[in-house]
Amino acid sequence: MLVVMGKAATPQMVAVVCDEIRQMGLTAHPIPGMQRMAIGVTGNKSQVDSDRLLTLPGVEDIIQVTQPYKLVSREWHAEDTVVQVGGVAVGGRNFVVMAGPCSVESREQSFRVAEAVSEAGVKIFRGGAFKPRTSPYSFQGLGHQGLEILAEVRERFGLLVVTEAVDTETLDAVAEYADIVQIGARNMQNYSLLKKAGRCKKAVLLKRGLSATLEEFLMAAEYILAEGNQRVILCERGVRTFADHTRNTLDLSAVPYVKRTSHLPIITDPSHATGRKDKVIPLSRASIAVGADGLLIEVHHDPSRALSDGPQAITPADLRQLMQELRALSAVLEREMA
Amino acid sequence: MLVVMGKAATPQMVAVVCDEIRQMGLTAHPIPGMQRMAIGVTGNKSQVDSDRLLTLPGVEDIIQVTQPYKLVSREWHAEDTVVQVGGVAVGGRNFVVMAGPCSVESREQSFRVAEAVSEAGVKIFRGGAFKPRTSPYSFQGLGHQGLEILAEVRERFGLLVVTEAVDTETLDAVAEYADIVQIGARNMQNYSLLKKAGRCKKAVLLKRGLSATLEEFLMAAEYILAEGNQRVILCERGVRTFADHTRNTLDLSAVPYVKRTSHLPIITDPSHATGRKDKVIPLSRASIAVGADGLLIEVHHDPSRALSDGPQAITPADLRQLMQELRALSAVLEREMA
Amino acid sequence: MLVVMGKAATPQMVAVVCDEIRQMGLTAHPIPGMQRMAIGVTGNKSQVDSDRLLTLPGVEDIIQVTQPYKLVSREWHAEDTVVQVGGVAVGGRNFVVMAGPCSVESREQSFRVAEAVSEAGVKIFRGGAFKPRTSPYSFQGLGHQGLEILAEVRERFGLLVVTEAVDTETLDAVAEYADIVQIGARNMQNYSLLKKAGRCKKAVLLKRGLSATLEEFLMAAEYILAEGNQRVILCERGVRTFADHTRNTLDLSAVPYVKRTSHLPIITDPSHATGRKDKVIPLSRASIAVGADGLLIEVHHDPSRALSDGPQAITPADLRQLMQELRALSAVLEREMA
Amino acid sequence: MLVVMGKAATPQMVAVVCDEIRQMGLTAHPIPGMQRMAIGVTGNKSQVDSDRLLTLPGVEDIIQVTQPYKLVSREWHAEDTVVQVGGVAVGGRNFVVMAGPCSVESREQSFRVAEAVSEAGVKIFRGGAFKPRTSPYSFQGLGHQGLEILAEVRERFGLLVVTEAVDTETLDAVAEYADIVQIGARNMQNYSLLKKAGRCKKAVLLKRGLSATLEEFLMAAEYILAEGNQRVILCERGVRTFADHTRNTLDLSAVPYVKRTSHLPIITDPSHATGRKDKVIPLSRASIAVGADGLLIEVHHDPSRALSDGPQAITPADLRQLMQELRALSAVLEREMA
Repeated sequence: MLVVMGKAATPQMVAVVCDEIRQMGLTAHPIPGMQRMAIGVTGNKSQVDSDRLLTLPGVEDIIQVTQPYKLVSREWHAEDTVVQVGGVAVGGRNFVVMAGPCSVESREQSFRVAEAVSEAGVKIFRGGAFKPRTSPYSFQGLGHQGLEILAEVRERFGLLVVTEAVDTETLDAVAEYADIVQIGARNMQNYSLLKKAGRCKKAVLLKRGLSATLEEFLMAAEYILAEGNQRVILCERGVRTFADHTRNTLDLSAVPYVKRTSHLPIITDPSHATGRKDKVIPLSRASIAVGADGLLIEVHHDPSRALSDGPQAITPADLRQLMQELRALSAVLEREMA
Repeated sequence: MLVVMGKAATPQMVAVVCDEIRQMGLTAHPIPGMQRMAIGVTGNKSQVDSDRLLTLPGVEDIIQVTQPYKLVSREWHAEDTVVQVGGVAVGGRNFVVMAGPCSVESREQSFRVAEAVSEAGVKIFRGGAFKPRTSPYSFQGLGHQGLEILAEVRERFGLLVVTEAVDTETLDAVAEYADIVQIGARNMQNYSLLKKAGRCKKAVLLKRGLSATLEEFLMAAEYILAEGNQRVILCERGVRTFADHTRNTLDLSAVPYVKRTSHLPIITDPSHATGRKDKVIPLSRASIAVGADGLLIEVHHDPSRALSDGPQAITPADLRQLMQELRALSAVLEREMA
Repeated sequence: MLVVMGKAATPQMVAVVCDEIRQMGLTAHPIPGMQRMAIGVTGNKSQVDSDRLLTLPGVEDIIQVTQPYKLVSREWHAEDTVVQVGGVAVGGRNFVVMAGPCSVESREQSFRVAEAVSEAGVKIFRGGAFKPRTSPYSFQGLGHQGLEILAEVRERFGLLVVTEAVDTETLDAVAEYADIVQIGARNMQNYSLLKKAGRCKKAVLLKRGLSATLEEFLMAAEYILAEGNQRVILCERGVRTFADHTRNTLDLSAVPYVKRTSHLPIITDPSHATGRKDKVIPLSRASIAVGADGLLIEVHHDPSRALSDGPQAITPADLRQLMQELRALSAVLEREMA
Repeated sequence: MLVVMGKAATPQMVAVVCDEIRQMGLTAHPIPGMQRMAIGVTGNKSQVDSDRLLTLPGVEDIIQVTQPYKLVSREWHAEDTVVQVGGVAVGGRNFVVMAGPCSVESREQSFRVAEAVSEAGVKIFRGGAFKPRTSPYSFQGLGHQGLEILAEVRERFGLLVVTEAVDTETLDAVAEYADIVQIGARNMQNYSLLKKAGRCKKAVLLKRGLSATLEEFLMAAEYILAEGNQRVILCERGVRTFADHTRNTLDLSAVPYVKRTSHLPIITDPSHATGRKDKVIPLSRASIAVGADGLLIEVHHDPSRALSDGPQAITPADLRQLMQELRALSAVLEREMA
């Protein structure tokens, strides 16, 4: 950490700052400059509460040098984490497609989609039983009944299941039924939910918030790991920008950044990011090419009848085509498809 | 609502869309254009699930004409809502300052700040007992002990209290102690929390999410009103943009927009928006001038010792100066200061 | 400047970086940390080309401590610059309203608006003769004929004139007719235009680009000052964000930031920022309250007949009302209205 | 186009709007709704100046149905445009890499990089002779001397040359030496420059502005085509968002959007978008996978000595590796590499 003093800071002010640093158990290194003084701070094993220093007279700015996260960082854990879910490995050389409807709407719908995704070679079924919706008047999911349907899907089609937990009240039920518990973008900084997910026994799929920096995203994952759950899969799902041609802007540069900074696997969700199916397939190809560890994709056997997010769902035929393209790309990119 | 057909849409496709609209219990009005056909849709009393139409063959776009919210809209309720909290009225001609520390750190600190804000003429004390923090390793608030201290503050200084509820588990306790329950920006779309706040007996201060559109913001308020709680105060607290000279960008145009669209009162939080105290006072003046109904401001008797967000806190002396400026402005702007 | 080395950097790598710093004529101050080494750099009188250092082995990041601009900074020139234009002073305690139509459309229209703004007490008339338009098929302004009309407006109504120069080819003509040459947001980084404006004899009104940081904004002004023209007025006119309720987001926090960092005056343009006249008046009040030195406002005697940007123009009656409100506020805020 | 009337609009107001529409030579189609009236407008062959309507009493909103651009649209020209540059075809099935240094720094540097990119199989050499720089004190390029060096590069290595024109004064000189004239992001809305580029005889590479919507981007291209130059290559180079882990956010969804909307080829520039070389290669792979027609990449034989943008340049060895990966991907993606 570096404390930058203003040009008008007196030696007395510098001394006060150095004292304060020492009282925090740290070491102060004054660095005289031609125009101003800076003070290097070392000895901090964890994040220093720099706000305190920023309010002292003469202090102009504080510059953080080290990252605030620990357990999620690659410095802490150099090897790629491979999250084992049932027989499927997420991370490392594997490229894993998770597909299914936005919402579990009925047994019949879920079975039809499950059959289609299974035939296409997908191993993990996605489908929401609890749905966070912008409007209180929109369809909010089948709830516990949806979880029961997902359990049937797993049994009948041999698929693993990823589904969202929207609050602490229902997380236990979700964790009982799901193989992977999803935390949605709106809940990325719902810390009570993150902590509870950190204490559950299932793998967690954590989506990036709509305007979260990657540091905040990794800090949210840190909440889960800090509670003892190492099985976290990150998911880039688009961020909010001024651009209006897609619902959100899929930030594919997040993938190489996370890969370098953290050991956790990261997948992408091109369906939610773009909101339109004609962009889902190109951005799926781009995702495997940029180095993502998998995809979360919405598929519906009849998108025009979907109760939520129909326009972004691809059809089973589109999915088969996409899986072929991904297999061809994975060979070139040295990835294994589950 | 208007359905826009593609240039290549056949009369058959148009007929299918019209049929679908009729099956939804609505009326279709085909509008032939020189290049393409559009279909006006009327008869919808509530929000239509337009996603279904968007997936039909030939449909290129859906344009929403009416707003999706209802109870929060000024069309529904033409008069300004004035939220009564203890003896203080928020909304209408009143301009209300809520001030206090970011966090309740100790009885002594809270009493000192409470005394200062009370002397400055402030009637509502703010202070967090439960704090949502980006890092799991940061100070997370005193919790229930903090609530007890707030109760003492109320009794001893005759101040009303606004404090944040961060999850459904602790909302009941917060609602028991607080006069106004705050829902923070990170929880603006935590629908379980919103619904529970909608069933509590206290007024709710709802902050705009970091990347929430005003439509989403009003829809979040709609969740609370839909559960029966009409006493909602909105709060603009800055949004996330590319600009890097403030922590967030305070979007003051939200105030006249909300005033025209909704009957609910709206205040601003220049402390969180800017993150630096030298911008808090100018933006407080701008807030009353733009038509806001009040302010939420961080004050600390010793910002350099604050356990959270010290750099954005103003001192009691700054607050007294600000209150004077606001009083002078309120006379010109025809506002009443509590 | 601070060079941050990676954890794996060897003493040899540190030595190479220090050597390189010395070859640049600067001094290197190694700061050993527990986890990594940092190197303070001093002795730089101007901006260091830090990119070179960033590519050396072991270097992880470069942190700039000092600002890259010089002539525009308050460190360089401590007093507020007051730009004298004809008999009007912009900056200091003065608050100056510039008003008029978006475009000069005809002599008759310009005279009618000029008469109205003059009667309202405005001293500076704005109106575009050359208009930058998104579409090549939109009205692009009257050009030289528009400049002639502006000259007549000045003579007949005793108003000063601000009008935009859109390219280097027409800047000389604009500078001949205008009292203040405006550089628009789209041209904020058109450096050839900035340099030529820096060599003209007229005051320059420089608008912030749609996604310019304040550092970039001040650097653009630096281009003008570096050519010898000190008479620069800055203008905040809204930035592009995800928010969709206004055309742009007026960033009023730019005003106190610029005031602290630079000696140049700064005004705001609430008309372009919001794009809707019902927000122009509240944001004009907020602008004087936040500390701006003036306003640039679109007025049209018949907005529904305006050839460009009608929806954001206020009427002469609105302007008279606004001027009254601003006069009342200026008394409280200790500003002088011209 | 659709005119939306307010709830309180009277039949008289509707009649006035319909009259106005007819006076514009268009047809009005009133659409009665349960809550409000809308008026469909047809007959417009080009963009209607809707601002006029928006100011009439009772009008609440105007909704554009058709796009404002024409010559660049795929509706106008259904086939992919293939831009022929020397013997190289950009667009269609071809995938074209353009590589070279950010700036032409010297003959020796240019020759070394040119030799390396030529050996790697690249056919088009990029290098800036005129450089737009944020600071007036930064290196601004070698200018005309740089153009001479580029001419030597072309002759000696048989490479085609793309280089930037920063203003109308130097565009003729650039167009004389270059095979492709680049218009940079900062100049995307410099309409004088666009028009002049539209009258030159060379192909034009147009970069997306830092905060340009795709509609604005295509409208900028429309300026060039409207002057008679059909040989336009678009370039996505990253947009400005809140995200701080890359310099800009590369918006790869722009590629499928442009492909569907326009017939023009589009390439990407991962070097400027990310600002760090460790992200250039993954995003290059993602670009070919998403459907881009090529890449613009910075290469330097000694990045630590580059006079500009060294941190984002890859080395000749990196380039050879990247070309191999692209060749392997192009086979799978059915693209031809020049």
